Amino acid sequence: MKHEGILIVVSGFSGAGKGTLMKRLVSKYENYALSISMTTRGKRAGETDGVSYFFVDRPTFEETLARDGLIEHAVYCGNYYGTPREWVENQLEQGKDVVLEIEIQGALKIRERYPNSLLLFVMPPSIQELQARLGKRGTETPDVIRARLQRAAQEAEGIEAYDFIVVNDDLDACMEQIHEIVRAAHLRPGCNKEFINQLKGELQALVKGEK
Amino acid sequence: MKHEGILIVVSGFSGAGKGTLMKRLVSKYENYALSISMTTRGKRAGETDGVSYFFVDRPTFEETLARDGLIEHAVYCGNYYGTPREWVENQLEQGKDVVLEIEIQGALKIRERYPNSLLLFVMPPSIQELQARLGKRGTETPDVIRARLQRAAQEAEGIEAYDFIVVNDDLDACMEQIHEIVRAAHLRPGCNKEFINQLKGELQALVKGEK
Repeated sequence: MKHEGILIVVSGFSGAGKGTLMKRLVSKYENYALSISMTTRGKRAGETDGVSYFFVDRPTFEETLARDGLIEHAVYCGNYYGTPREWVENQLEQGKDVVLEIEIQGALKIRERYPNSLLLFVMPPSIQELQARLGKRGTETPDVIRARLQRAAQEAEGIEAYDFIVVNDDLDACMEQIHEIVRAAHLRPGCNKEFINQLKGELQALVKGEK
Repeated sequence: MKHEGILIVVSGFSGAGKGTLMKRLVSKYENYALSISMTTRGKRAGETDGVSYFFVDRPTFEETLARDGLIEHAVYCGNYYGTPREWVENQLEQGKDVVLEIEIQGALKIRERYPNSLLLFVMPPSIQELQARLGKRGTETPDVIRARLQRAAQEAEGIEAYDFIVVNDDLDACMEQIHEIVRAAHLRPGCNKEFINQLKGELQALVKGEK
């Protein structure tokens, strides 16, 4: 069966380890491509245009949005963030499974536009572990940690909208689990329309011919 | 995450190799249990009651049906066939993934009653291969083969209702693919309600406690 790629949306609580998981997945398996967001926020030290983000000014972002050039977008701390449509669709056509890290509102928009997309939610093994991980970074104040936990409580309400939930206890085990889910997802009927239609056509022709 | 078992419905064209696949899956992995149907048809040579089928008389079957003792049933060549509910639900509660081989009408009934069930459709690699397999058995007349192809053409119209389609080209590869799908299916939110609710509760408690 020949496959078009699948658009994989990954969400999860801050501190669940999404970013590391995705990087490891993309570097281990060739079938993945990591989507790069477009943003209007300023480039920070160590960031590279076209790798970390596509850095653009506000008029460019708005013009891209106006010509349906983004499959989803959001505003965060006064800056725009969005997913360039052309790059994603080009990768999908080439058979790449495109990985996208966004939150639930964006995930639901993508599900609407790309019914064959795959929505994954990454969980910490426990809330205690989530707290510990948020604390361990050492860069966040208690207020920031508290805000993230509040945000997590809100995000948890949307979990049922996801197709699969994975628990990030062991990083490599969790990555392999995601890879297994993606492989299974390629076997959904919606990802094999061509094969199904060909088979239906052959069966019909055979039955008609033999009548 | 603690799991209840999943009810796995396997359908597919006659000649696709469902029976052999299921037997191999159940004998290789401990998490599966193969459902045994109840039937009113006579026992054939080599068949054992409670292994091949539960052989019962018509009043017993009708009484079982009347007390909601079957999760689906059908009539075929004047005989009743049905799936005993108690045995299946008991296995599911014990965490077993119960495999059930039935056709599309039964599959759709099961989806309605057990929303977390998994509907798999087994395909031959091609129609040429399907014809060859039907012919190879050597026991069927051309008329029977033709009737099965006609039936296959009808069944093909319902393929989109299934969750996953697998191509039975290599028996072991196909079996492993099914096993992978089942493992992934356990990660759907519907199969992890307890875990999700616990996590939501802990998060809420934490957020409220820190306010």
